[in-house]
Amino acid sequence: MTSTDADAVLAKFRDYVTGPTRYANLLTVFELGIVAQLKATGPDGMTATQLAAVTGVSAHHVEQLLELPVKDGFIARAPRTGAYTLDGIARLTDEELARVMPWLHMVKEVCLRQLYHLTESVREGRIVGLEQLYGFTGNFYQASKAHPELHAAWEPVMHAVTGYIDPWFYSRLDLPAGARVIDIAGNTAQGAVLAQKYHGEKGIHVTCFDLPEKEDEALDNIAGAGVGDSCRFIGGDALAEIPKGFDVAMIKHFLDMWDHDNALRILRNTYEALPAGGRLIAMHLTYPEDGNAATADFFPAYFFGCTMAQGGPQKLSTWAAWIEEAGFKITGTVEQDMTTAPADTIPAHSIVYATKV
Amino acid sequence: MTSTDADAVLAKFRDYVTGPTRYANLLTVFELGIVAQLKATGPDGMTATQLAAVTGVSAHHVEQLLELPVKDGFIARAPRTGAYTLDGIARLTDEELARVMPWLHMVKEVCLRQLYHLTESVREGRIVGLEQLYGFTGNFYQASKAHPELHAAWEPVMHAVTGYIDPWFYSRLDLPAGARVIDIAGNTAQGAVLAQKYHGEKGIHVTCFDLPEKEDEALDNIAGAGVGDSCRFIGGDALAEIPKGFDVAMIKHFLDMWDHDNALRILRNTYEALPAGGRLIAMHLTYPEDGNAATADFFPAYFFGCTMAQGGPQKLSTWAAWIEEAGFKITGTVEQDMTTAPADTIPAHSIVYATKV
Repeated sequence: MTSTDADAVLAKFRDYVTGPTRYANLLTVFELGIVAQLKATGPDGMTATQLAAVTGVSAHHVEQLLELPVKDGFIARAPRTGAYTLDGIARLTDEELARVMPWLHMVKEVCLRQLYHLTESVREGRIVGLEQLYGFTGNFYQASKAHPELHAAWEPVMHAVTGYIDPWFYSRLDLPAGARVIDIAGNTAQGAVLAQKYHGEKGIHVTCFDLPEKEDEALDNIAGAGVGDSCRFIGGDALAEIPKGFDVAMIKHFLDMWDHDNALRILRNTYEALPAGGRLIAMHLTYPEDGNAATADFFPAYFFGCTMAQGGPQKLSTWAAWIEEAGFKITGTVEQDMTTAPADTIPAHSIVYATKV
Repeated sequence: MTSTDADAVLAKFRDYVTGPTRYANLLTVFELGIVAQLKATGPDGMTATQLAAVTGVSAHHVEQLLELPVKDGFIARAPRTGAYTLDGIARLTDEELARVMPWLHMVKEVCLRQLYHLTESVREGRIVGLEQLYGFTGNFYQASKAHPELHAAWEPVMHAVTGYIDPWFYSRLDLPAGARVIDIAGNTAQGAVLAQKYHGEKGIHVTCFDLPEKEDEALDNIAGAGVGDSCRFIGGDALAEIPKGFDVAMIKHFLDMWDHDNALRILRNTYEALPAGGRLIAMHLTYPEDGNAATADFFPAYFFGCTMAQGGPQKLSTWAAWIEEAGFKITGTVEQDMTTAPADTIPAHSIVYATKV
């Protein structure tokens, strides 16, 4: 118990306390168009007065708001002229910026005000923030139908995450030739389409199973991808009953939305639906066993305060244990290698392969 | 432009994105009473199930919410039993915890939801968050009179900051014997009382000058401290006119609430009020010249989105330049040594000494 130990803890408290202001400051620099202006200007950059003229705020505001991005190396300020240029931000490719910006925007609409109610949401077991802000009772996915701004903020993040993780998952999707596959909570059939894209040559047939309200959009996506002969949609609720007649069940990005009891209901329903020898391939948010990822920095608060009031990542060993608890035999596991993931990555994933024996 | 450069920028983006969720997660662990329970228990700690029983939330919620504090070393989890004990938090003294906790609580009431409107507040030049949340038009200090929960969240932080910085400032308050001192924007006369505590033996007389509405509380504080013979209150507005008849003007924690033009109005009014040879001692939030402090991480967003919609720290050289611009001759400056400040320190301060020649 040295003074250095205590100092490290105190510094950590300071980092937590300044998290919301740091976030909001950076977002505002983008929202005011300052980054776009600096991107468009020449190597001489722009002074606070010039930036004020084009963004419609005062030079005082520009100077103050750029203190933090200059300190943190996103933006540079020339000591002599005071002109600003992009620094760290200029080092990112368009693709990299397109991956991080949706997160920056999403946190504003989906999290910032909702998190004020986090403690209450945990106590009540429902998203109090959505009730307070939108008068909406239900989870985020239901609310985002009634409030397009929520969906608009969330969807690009979902695309950024799946755009990165899909190639990883589908290249590890071990499907036998001719398999009849059910994609449980398959949403709008993107998973069915991708399974065909990656494994269509095996002559598989994929059924997207989700709530009946997803049907129209799912069928549009299936038709749009030209896989109508080998994909279909069935409406239903995985928490109630899962249809029979499949060799393989996929469960992606779904078990992690639930607590243990609900996840077990889904897994037991899956077990019931599959024939002996039937296979389960499940991908879910995961706390890496070495603890070295930002998964914990985001998801518990996000699930509890912003989306479901339950759920969250688990360690791969926990996912495997739950799947065994539902009756399956584990045949393999893969954990995403976070050492090769982009440095901005927040969610870590794992896959569990299992068989009904 | 190496990949490592880009990785550092991407990792920084991730840190910004997770700032609000990290903050809310930690706050909720305190708000649910988990830390208090672990503080009160023995060295064996408590399991998630035990913590659930005493806090009234589920073990699932406890486990998820403790992932982050375990990862960051605030709390420990025994690998074998799964029991939680305090780790980093236990290394802090009661005094240290009493310094950081007000900040953690304050950010919730004063900042979190308000920052959603930061960009709009900057564009409009007023605190849009207070209008949206409280239907209040005006600055934070006005709003906190009408809304006691705002004042209750802010006041302990003010006390934590002044409790640390007051001894530093008053031991550097260079007052001649018998000086007639005006404390400009002296609030409720704490500065007058402290000037007497530190320098009363010099036979000084201190006038607290602030808005008339502060008078009752200021006089109570003066009477309570037993310094009624050597302190008084005058009501007025420093932006309009400052009374004459003083040798020394103090301006503490006030110039930083304004932009350049308003700060200059206050400084010019001070210059007008003082006689030739009169002295100014001004203390204000400061960006350290080496940039190595958390001042920028908090204050621009706080001032713009939560309190004044203007203002902020400046570099000491800027403060000195503004004070010279008002006509004063600088006679000395002192900057707080942030290398010896506690590791949780967010605001950095400096003092400028000047004379009307």
